[in-house]
Amino acid sequence: MTGDDTAPDETRIMAAAARLAGHVRETPLLRDPALDAIAGRPVWVKAECLQHTGSFKYRGAKAAVTALCAAGSVAGVVACSSGNHGQGVARAAREAGIAAVIVLPDDAPDPKVAAIRANGAEIVTHDRHGADRHAIAAAICAARGFAFIPPFDHPDVIAGQAGVGLEIAAQVRATGVTQADVLVCCGGGGLAAGIALALEPRAPGLRVCTVEPEGYDDTARALAGAPGPNPPGARSVCDAILTPAPGRLTLPVLARLAGPGRTVTDDAALRAMTLAFAHLRIVLEPGGAVALAAALDWTDAADTPVIAVATGGNVDPALFARAIRAGT
Amino acid sequence: MTGDDTAPDETRIMAAAARLAGHVRETPLLRDPALDAIAGRPVWVKAECLQHTGSFKYRGAKAAVTALCAAGSVAGVVACSSGNHGQGVARAAREAGIAAVIVLPDDAPDPKVAAIRANGAEIVTHDRHGADRHAIAAAICAARGFAFIPPFDHPDVIAGQAGVGLEIAAQVRATGVTQADVLVCCGGGGLAAGIALALEPRAPGLRVCTVEPEGYDDTARALAGAPGPNPPGARSVCDAILTPAPGRLTLPVLARLAGPGRTVTDDAALRAMTLAFAHLRIVLEPGGAVALAAALDWTDAADTPVIAVATGGNVDPALFARAIRAGT
Repeated sequence: MTGDDTAPDETRIMAAAARLAGHVRETPLLRDPALDAIAGRPVWVKAECLQHTGSFKYRGAKAAVTALCAAGSVAGVVACSSGNHGQGVARAAREAGIAAVIVLPDDAPDPKVAAIRANGAEIVTHDRHGADRHAIAAAICAARGFAFIPPFDHPDVIAGQAGVGLEIAAQVRATGVTQADVLVCCGGGGLAAGIALALEPRAPGLRVCTVEPEGYDDTARALAGAPGPNPPGARSVCDAILTPAPGRLTLPVLARLAGPGRTVTDDAALRAMTLAFAHLRIVLEPGGAVALAAALDWTDAADTPVIAVATGGNVDPALFARAIRAGT
Repeated sequence: MTGDDTAPDETRIMAAAARLAGHVRETPLLRDPALDAIAGRPVWVKAECLQHTGSFKYRGAKAAVTALCAAGSVAGVVACSSGNHGQGVARAAREAGIAAVIVLPDDAPDPKVAAIRANGAEIVTHDRHGADRHAIAAAICAARGFAFIPPFDHPDVIAGQAGVGLEIAAQVRATGVTQADVLVCCGGGGLAAGIALALEPRAPGLRVCTVEPEGYDDTARALAGAPGPNPPGARSVCDAILTPAPGRLTLPVLARLAGPGRTVTDDAALRAMTLAFAHLRIVLEPGGAVALAAALDWTDAADTPVIAVATGGNVDPALFARAIRAGT
C-alpha cells in the first residue's frame, strides 16, 4: 500500500472498498428520455445525493476514519468543511464512537449545520473570507490530540471516493456502455481523482472530465497548463465546491487521467437542479449539479454517452424553491 | 394462471416479474436518522419516485401492455389517469411500438401532461367533477379497436405493482428485518394489493396498511366494514390518489392481507414531502408522500420498523416550492 503522501494505489482503493462494504449505499445510475433529448446523447446520472448524509463525502470520510481506527486508538477527528465533508466526518466519527470537531464557514447553509449537529459533532465557525481555517483546525488537533481529516488531499479520502468509480464501472457493464464521458463536480478534485483511478483498470473507455463553477476553475486551468489562483472576490452559488486550488495528491492523477476541465455558470447549475427535480425526482444542490449542467450544455459533444456524477443534495430550501419556480 | 377477473396468483406475479426484468428500475430502500428520530422507530422509505416515469405506475402499465402484446396483435391502448398511470401507459406503449390515448382531468399538473405528451401519447381531457371518463375511454376503444388498461382493477396491473413487494422482501432480508409495518399510499389499492400478495409467502411478518388522504378514505372505511362513497365535494392536494372506491379485485386482497387503513391530512402529506426533500433528497408529490406522513405521525406505534412506500414524484414545481418554504 502506498504511503500517506501519494495518491492511493489499487490495493488501498480495494482495502477502502472492503471497509466500506455494507456501510455506504450503492447509488443508482438514473436516466430519463427528457435529459437525453436536451443533451443529444444518452445521459446517465450517478445519484450520489442519495448517499448517506446526502453527498459522496461520506465515502471518503468513512474510509479515512475507519483507517485511523484500524491503525490504533484515536480520540477524535477534526475537519474543515463547507458542509458536506463535515457531515460525512461527523457521521463516520459517530459510527466509530469517537469525537468530531467540524470547522466551517459562518455562511454555511442551515440544513448542513443542523445535520452536523444532529450527528453529535462540535461546530467551530469562521469567516469564509477572513480566518485561516486550517490554523484553527491545527490548534484543535494540537490541544486535544485529534487527527485532521482533509477534504480531498489524503490517500484514504481519495480511496473512499474511488468507490463511486467502482460502482460506475460495474453499473455501465450492465448497460453495455464502453465509451463515455464521465463528468465530475470538482472542488479539490478528490472525487474526480478517485473515480479516475477506479476506472483506469476497469473501464478505460470512460474518461473523467472535471466540472467547476465559473470563477473557481482552478483545476481546469491547471490541467490546461496555466495554474494559478482564482480571481479575487469571485462568488458562486455552488458553495460546496469553492476551493482555491487543486490538491497536491489529486492534480497529478487528474493530469494523467482526466480533462480537459469544463466550467459552467451558476445559472446553468440552477437549471440542472431544476431538470433533475422534474425528470429524475432527485434533490441536488448547485455544487452537486454542475456536472449535469455541463452534460446538458455540451453542444459540441460526440454522441457517446455521458455519465454525470450528481454529487450532493444538501441545499437551502429557499434557494431550491427559487430555482424550481424560475425553471417553470 | 388466474383469469382476468380475479387478483393475480403467484404464477402471474412471477410471469410479470420476468417480463419486467431489465425494464423496471429496482428502487432503493432509503433511511435517515432524522426520520427515525421523528417516528421513534426505524423508517425505511421505498423510493418509487425514482422509478421510470416518476412513479410505480410504470410497473403495472408495463406488465399489462407486455401481456397484451404477448397475447397477440394490439393496435393501441387507452387509459384514464390523473397522470401517473397515464405516464406509465404512454411509456410502456411507446416501448412496445403501439399507440396510446390517455384520458385525464383538465386540472392534472402540467409536468404530468407534458411527460405524457413527450412519450408520444394522444391526450383527451375531461372535467374532473363532471364527465364520465370511463365512457369517454370506452368510446375510443370501440371506435379504434384499442384495449383499455385500468389503473388498478386488472390482474396484470396488480401483478406488475407486486414487483415493489418482491423488491421489498429481498431488500429487507439484507437488513435483517422480519417484522414491519408496510405503509402504502392508496388510491384504488392496486399497489397495496400487489405488495401484500408478494409479501404473503416471502415475508409474512411484513403487514401492509393502506394510507389515504382525509376525505378520500374509502378503502379504510371498507376495510373497517363500513364501505360507502366519500363525502361529496371533498378536496385534497393528493391528486394522484383521489379515487371514489376501492377496486373489485383489490379490496378482497386487502381485506384478507392488509389493514387497518390509515388516513392523513394534506398538511401531513406536505410536511412529509418537505422531510423527504431535506433528509432523503428525493422529490415526492403529495399523493406519493401520504405513507411517509403516516409513518411519521403514527404516535402509538410499536418499535418495529416501518417501511413507507413513496409512490410518486411528479409534482407541480410551484406547489413543491411552497411546501419546502413553509417547512423551514
